Amino acid sequence: MGRVTVRRPVRMLSASGQRRRPDSLAAEEPLEIRVGGKSLAVTMRTPGHDVELAHGFLLSEGVIGSMEDVATARYCDSVDDSGRNTYNVLDVALADGVPPPDTGVERNFYTTSSCGVCGKAALDAVKLKTRFSPGGSALAVSAEVLAGLPDELRERQKVFASTGGLHAAGLFRTDGSLLAVREDVGRHNAVDKVLGWALLEQRVPLSDIGLLVSGRASFELVQKAAMAGIPFLAAVSAPSSLAVELAEENGMTLVGFLRGSSMNLYTGEQRVLAAD
Amino acid sequence: MGRVTVRRPVRMLSASGQRRRPDSLAAEEPLEIRVGGKSLAVTMRTPGHDVELAHGFLLSEGVIGSMEDVATARYCDSVDDSGRNTYNVLDVALADGVPPPDTGVERNFYTTSSCGVCGKAALDAVKLKTRFSPGGSALAVSAEVLAGLPDELRERQKVFASTGGLHAAGLFRTDGSLLAVREDVGRHNAVDKVLGWALLEQRVPLSDIGLLVSGRASFELVQKAAMAGIPFLAAVSAPSSLAVELAEENGMTLVGFLRGSSMNLYTGEQRVLAAD
Repeated sequence: MGRVTVRRPVRMLSASGQRRRPDSLAAEEPLEIRVGGKSLAVTMRTPGHDVELAHGFLLSEGVIGSMEDVATARYCDSVDDSGRNTYNVLDVALADGVPPPDTGVERNFYTTSSCGVCGKAALDAVKLKTRFSPGGSALAVSAEVLAGLPDELRERQKVFASTGGLHAAGLFRTDGSLLAVREDVGRHNAVDKVLGWALLEQRVPLSDIGLLVSGRASFELVQKAAMAGIPFLAAVSAPSSLAVELAEENGMTLVGFLRGSSMNLYTGEQRVLAAD
Repeated sequence: MGRVTVRRPVRMLSASGQRRRPDSLAAEEPLEIRVGGKSLAVTMRTPGHDVELAHGFLLSEGVIGSMEDVATARYCDSVDDSGRNTYNVLDVALADGVPPPDTGVERNFYTTSSCGVCGKAALDAVKLKTRFSPGGSALAVSAEVLAGLPDELRERQKVFASTGGLHAAGLFRTDGSLLAVREDVGRHNAVDKVLGWALLEQRVPLSDIGLLVSGRASFELVQKAAMAGIPFLAAVSAPSSLAVELAEENGMTLVGFLRGSSMNLYTGEQRVLAAD
């Protein structure tokens, strides 16, 4: 798996004594995303699927809405001290007519209302950027299918199996099959990678697809789902208050604490078909 | 606990049927940190301890090294649609002679070496910013004390108990007592809050104190510990490759997968006193 994992010696202590052995760590490296030659963001990510990551990030940010909005996306020639390309800088050129993103620090400042910055303004900012309307989707998933998803995701997490250290995101069909799974040290990156994959497969908006994440559901993750037109977000752990508000405002379904047959339905419960 | 948690109705499904009840969610709201009137960052955080958060953030970023570097830190008068202060914008004025931070997007770009952006450059950038030298600390903790820390932290997590949705960070002494514990929807914020607390208590550099985090150990968290002069980071979950490299380069101790008497020592193992 190359740079996705890194081997390191480790001393393991346990009740039965101690031993020294090599351990696999999840790789973490910075990725700089440039648009039109200008730095837009640096994210600490697990190398691999970087072109997908960049596309998903730009989709989430409202910069692009389809793969046609990108003219080229390629690693630039940045080299390390020994002259090797680090593959840590990705240059994106937008297609003609696509407005470049605001690269200022105010870019994500959610300052569209009088409050300067607040939860309401954050919700409004997403509304302004959204190209697709996830709320109209007639997608429905049985509770039984949902119950099986976390195990299915875990089975597809190849790197987690060796490191115990990655977040995962998966796109699922209503029959419970997983379209794509990506892992990353950053949960937002794992989501960007699956969204970028879908964009490059020309499947966006994903109005008949759900998104599953291995951890918590934050505002940011609901925003990413909304920007891709995904009507359904299921999380293994807890959602935050603003995540629930954003899902509700967008007519999305938000399921949290998805653990076997037990789960919490926070919004859009009409899309979950319970047995009784 | 006011805005720290938010009540929402939820429909809970489980093997024994379904019921509807109110649920407590971890609150998430944006906080804008301004320095000298200029926006420096917006972070999605759980409200509370915001002044600590801002101080910890500025310490982590290398902007300040002691509480004397800050002249004032107060909420600005941003109001929502109903005219109420949102308490989501914090204005920091630096003391005379303290250079203002670079507010450009390049601020964290780790571009100090020829590679443009890469792991090595990220390590170098931290070295340039570090004011204290955690590597020289003679701190040592017994494996037995370490084994008890996660339960101790969990017991102090008041908001987690009601929401299941927060990260925690704690500062611990070598006898296993916890100096301060903070919770947040963002793990970096939880760390910034305890570091800011320590700064305001004039305890920085924390050369005789360890940092415990409830989740994974990323590059960013090791960086924050290093910037506060903390020689010891213990994490309940996995570290990333770059987290281990940074800990090693700074002579710090990094313990991962701390679960009862079982733990992995990645770097600086001389600071862990094993029973045998």
